[in-house]
Amino acid sequence: MSKMPKKRKGKLIVQKYGGSSVADVAKIEKAAQRLISYAKKGNRVVAVISAMGDTTDELVCLAKEINPNPSEREMDMLMSTGEQISCSLLAMAIHKRGMGAISFTGPQVGIITDTYHTQAKILKIETDRIKKELIKGSIVIIAGFQGLSTALEITTLGRGGSDLSAVALAVFLKADLCEIYTDVEGIYTADPRVVPEAKKLKSITFDEMLELSSLGAQIMHTRAIEVAKKFNIPIHVRGSFTKEEGTIIMRKTSSIEKPVVRGITLTSNEAKLTLCNVPDKPGIAAHLFNELGCKNINVDMIVQNVSHKRTTDISFTVSKKGLTKALKISKSISKNVGAGEVISDETIAKVSVVGVGMKSHSGVAARCFSILAKNKINIDMISTSEISISCIVKKTAGKKALKVLHKGFKLG
Amino acid sequence: MSKMPKKRKGKLIVQKYGGSSVADVAKIEKAAQRLISYAKKGNRVVAVISAMGDTTDELVCLAKEINPNPSEREMDMLMSTGEQISCSLLAMAIHKRGMGAISFTGPQVGIITDTYHTQAKILKIETDRIKKELIKGSIVIIAGFQGLSTALEITTLGRGGSDLSAVALAVFLKADLCEIYTDVEGIYTADPRVVPEAKKLKSITFDEMLELSSLGAQIMHTRAIEVAKKFNIPIHVRGSFTKEEGTIIMRKTSSIEKPVVRGITLTSNEAKLTLCNVPDKPGIAAHLFNELGCKNINVDMIVQNVSHKRTTDISFTVSKKGLTKALKISKSISKNVGAGEVISDETIAKVSVVGVGMKSHSGVAARCFSILAKNKINIDMISTSEISISCIVKKTAGKKALKVLHKGFKLG
Repeated sequence: MSKMPKKRKGKLIVQKYGGSSVADVAKIEKAAQRLISYAKKGNRVVAVISAMGDTTDELVCLAKEINPNPSEREMDMLMSTGEQISCSLLAMAIHKRGMGAISFTGPQVGIITDTYHTQAKILKIETDRIKKELIKGSIVIIAGFQGLSTALEITTLGRGGSDLSAVALAVFLKADLCEIYTDVEGIYTADPRVVPEAKKLKSITFDEMLELSSLGAQIMHTRAIEVAKKFNIPIHVRGSFTKEEGTIIMRKTSSIEKPVVRGITLTSNEAKLTLCNVPDKPGIAAHLFNELGCKNINVDMIVQNVSHKRTTDISFTVSKKGLTKALKISKSISKNVGAGEVISDETIAKVSVVGVGMKSHSGVAARCFSILAKNKINIDMISTSEISISCIVKKTAGKKALKVLHKGFKLG
Repeated sequence: MSKMPKKRKGKLIVQKYGGSSVADVAKIEKAAQRLISYAKKGNRVVAVISAMGDTTDELVCLAKEINPNPSEREMDMLMSTGEQISCSLLAMAIHKRGMGAISFTGPQVGIITDTYHTQAKILKIETDRIKKELIKGSIVIIAGFQGLSTALEITTLGRGGSDLSAVALAVFLKADLCEIYTDVEGIYTADPRVVPEAKKLKSITFDEMLELSSLGAQIMHTRAIEVAKKFNIPIHVRGSFTKEEGTIIMRKTSSIEKPVVRGITLTSNEAKLTLCNVPDKPGIAAHLFNELGCKNINVDMIVQNVSHKRTTDISFTVSKKGLTKALKISKSISKNVGAGEVISDETIAKVSVVGVGMKSHSGVAARCFSILAKNKINIDMISTSEISISCIVKKTAGKKALKVLHKGFKLG
């Protein structure tokens, strides 16, 4: 009796394709080819797909044209169509190449969420239907960004939702790997559009990636990285249009000697507010930031100068879109407590130095400040975490600050 | 104690808006206004919505670009997004005007179908969720054309599917009335674009409407009328952009004296085939039409001339898109049975005279033929039903035939 060759079981891989990776017919065909090449190597492949290119933005525009303040439940009904379209088209592209594939909407496949429309959280994923199709040998294509609420309504997961769908699927399917295909080729030491000598990182820790993301790197959403960290799912961030390896996000990077600084980010989506001449009495700052918190305004950095006289200045930053609301609240409180004028400044930028190595290396902050000083860049505010240092500088000095820090920390 | 004014319960009305009635933002706003005006009169209103304008056609084009022969299951995934978009937008437009509304996809609301993708049949509708929302006073907006199969897949209902959704919802909700809003203002004695003096009918019977539809009037799909007839749901066909009454389709029209002829239709989507010199032996016609039936080719009219010699000619009509297949089958059979050549003719038109009054009035056929003869229009083939007479004429004579019959039967 001749022995049948044993079929290698291969890996279970979840691949996520963002909007730019399925933006048109040609790109959908490319994604189909890549998925097939993985499946043909004996892997079981689950694809999580975003809406094509700007579809979601277009649907939002259409909605706003009809109702400037649309119901969130109906927005979810509307927006969830985008991924359904790209998923079914991708399945058709795979079929044309003679391979089995099946597309599912989030609700259909059992991605169960809470009931917070437009920003739902995934509660669990029922994997039976996916596993059944994988056993058949089909590539399973799932609409990202969406789910079914416990109230049986269609929900969406908010910004970065498709990343979250992919990571959560990897968790519930116990996948070996989660790959995120995007329009950049990985994680860089700085934004290569601003710093041409920036280098692609081979690997990065979850914590570092979390800092980078929350400090402005727009490659993956913080929520998705948090979930990946929690369940220890390695994520491979890579380019859709290249075969080059990207960057692996994982618990511990493989390098023996950790570099002290892993990357530098720059954002300019914050604004600064200053309450002048605040009476130096306890409770005023608590009152201010409590009010801002109640109104859903996220405060990032806070600086209160040591008071020389009977008054002090309180400065803080908020995202620009929250500025008007924050200004109104601050002025009202300033008036109530007998403080002075409230100044706002939108011409600021935040440059941040990130690296887990900082935990065990002293002097990073000092080096950062001295690099900026040597280059005559004035620091307006400073905040630090265990693995990052952020400085507020004038907006006009932002790019220069990024470049000199990148060079100063020898990341090029 | 003062008595509260008793709230009139009002009617339960299902309104269907076709693609042209929700083609753009302005038209969606108009539909919203109309729905609200009905709801404010104390009616409970369920709206069934098609995809906006040419959305469905655009999605089909996109699919064909990727795969000329797409899987029907994936086509249903793709196409069902069109109605979901228009439904959610309509809900937003109603909200803006301060009224409650909620949109549902077909699967979500429990429109259960069989498993025949792209041409599914509705098996049942679960009305609990709709009724719950109606009790709250919301306008319930439902995506037409789609449902959930017994295999938990998204299905679509094929051509005229939204009409079918509307009528089926009216049946299962025991609605008082089903209104079909469309881009024509009702049912006319003939197509007003060809016969300007055509008159809008106040009412028409289900049977007459069925004949008119299957003979080419494209206002409502035959399947929807069949269901309405079966469950005796009166249908009001009316224009989306007018307050004028349209035409009521019902079991019995109210007019005391039924007009003998209710309307005249013209189509030119058929082609004629003739098998010449067929040996006059039994079983050949049966063999031919059996083969055509097996290949899903719908044969409309059949004429076999009385045979003078040992051979006869068999002519029949098929839809133009089935012509190539029908020709191939006919040629093969002709060869096998020793018949002569097979001739096809695409330059034909079918003009039909419809009216239930024919049942009790003789001489309608004779009058029809003599009107055509008087106007020197040659009749190629004739077929009749209980309430209709159809004549095949040269395509070039089609419009003239329609006009002279409309005039001859005094319908103007």
